[in-house]
Amino acid sequence: MFITFEGIDGCGKSTQAKMLFELLNKNGGAVLTREPGGWDGGDALRSLVLSGGLRHGWSEFFLFMLDRAEHAARVIEPALAAGRHVICERYHDSTLAYQVWGRGLPYGPLRDVLLLAGLPVPDVTFFFSVSPETALSRVSRRGAPDAFEREGLGFMKKIDEGYRTLAKNERSRWVVVECGKRTPEEIFENVRTSLRGKGLAI
Amino acid sequence: MFITFEGIDGCGKSTQAKMLFELLNKNGGAVLTREPGGWDGGDALRSLVLSGGLRHGWSEFFLFMLDRAEHAARVIEPALAAGRHVICERYHDSTLAYQVWGRGLPYGPLRDVLLLAGLPVPDVTFFFSVSPETALSRVSRRGAPDAFEREGLGFMKKIDEGYRTLAKNERSRWVVVECGKRTPEEIFENVRTSLRGKGLAI
Repeated sequence: MFITFEGIDGCGKSTQAKMLFELLNKNGGAVLTREPGGWDGGDALRSLVLSGGLRHGWSEFFLFMLDRAEHAARVIEPALAAGRHVICERYHDSTLAYQVWGRGLPYGPLRDVLLLAGLPVPDVTFFFSVSPETALSRVSRRGAPDAFEREGLGFMKKIDEGYRTLAKNERSRWVVVECGKRTPEEIFENVRTSLRGKGLAI
Repeated sequence: MFITFEGIDGCGKSTQAKMLFELLNKNGGAVLTREPGGWDGGDALRSLVLSGGLRHGWSEFFLFMLDRAEHAARVIEPALAAGRHVICERYHDSTLAYQVWGRGLPYGPLRDVLLLAGLPVPDVTFFFSVSPETALSRVSRRGAPDAFEREGLGFMKKIDEGYRTLAKNERSRWVVVECGKRTPEEIFENVRTSLRGKGLAI
C-alpha cells in the first residue's frame, strides 16, 4: 500500500508516520520516506536552488515535480514493486495545496500532471487537521522557519482550506483526522482503525 | 523582439546567433543567451542533476521547465522590459522537439505549459535545418558528446521531424532555414532578410 501523510507544518504528521512505520516494518515490509528530498540528490537539488531564491512563480512547482519524479523512480516504485508498504510524508497533494491555494496556480493542470507523468497515486492519504494557530506555535518553537513557515498564519489558513477541499473532492482516498487536543497515541488509533477499514491487517 | 534559434546540435545555430547578436548589439540593444543554463545557478542545477543521471521519463521536462522559468524571470523578461532584443539559443521548442518527438511525452500538455506558466512566447523562431548526418559528424569532431548526442543518428532524425512539424503548425512564428552546404555568411543573409520582413531595421 502507498500511504501519504499530509497537513501543514506542525500538524504532527512526522510523529504519526514514524508510529505507522514502526508498526508496519515489524515484518521488514515498509519504507518511510518524505518529500521534498527523499532520494540521493534531492536535498542537494533543493538547497542549491532555494539558496539563491526562486524568482518565477512556477519554479517551485517544477522543482517539486522534478524531485517527485526522481523520488518515485528511485524510492517509491522499487519499494512497491518489492511488495513493501510505502509511507510518504508529503506528496502530490502538498503541491496542490501549497501551489494552488497558497500561490494561486491553476488547479486542473497541476492535478493532471501526476497521472500524465505516470507517477504513483496513493492508496490512502491522511490529512492531519490542526488549527493553523496551534501548528504555527509548534513550528516557531522548533527554531529556524523555512520559506513556507515564514509566510505565516494567513498562508497556513489557505493551505488548510486547500487540503479540506482536496479531501472533499476525493473522499475514497482521503482520511481526515481532526487532531484537536488529542495525544499522538489517541490520534494513531484513528490511523490504525482507518487502515484496517482499508483492508490492512494491523 | 524575442528571437529564438532552434535546431539539432551541430546545425550552426550558435554561429548564427553570434552574428545576429553582433549586428543588433551595435546600439547596445541586444542580449545573447541560451538554454539550458543561461542564468546564475542554471549550469550548477543542470550538472548536479545530470551527474547522477535522471531515472524518470519526465524529469528532464521538469528540469528544463524549472531552468526556463528562472531564465525567463532573471534574464529574458528584464531585458525585454528594458527594450532590448533577446536572442536565445534553444527555448521551449527544443523541449517540445526533444521530449515529445525524442522521448515520447504527450504534445498538448507540454505545449500548453509555456502559456499556462505565463512564460514569454518568441516573436520569431529560426529552425536551422541540416541533415542529421552532417550535424552528427560536426558534433563528433567537437569532442565529448552530451546525453542527447550519445543518442545518435536515429534520435536526431526524430528531433528534425519534430522541428519540421512544429514549424508547419505555426508558420507565422517560424522561419525554416535550409542550410544545405551554404556558408555561414550566406545563411545569415537569410536570417537578416527574414527579420527585415518582420519589421526589424537591420
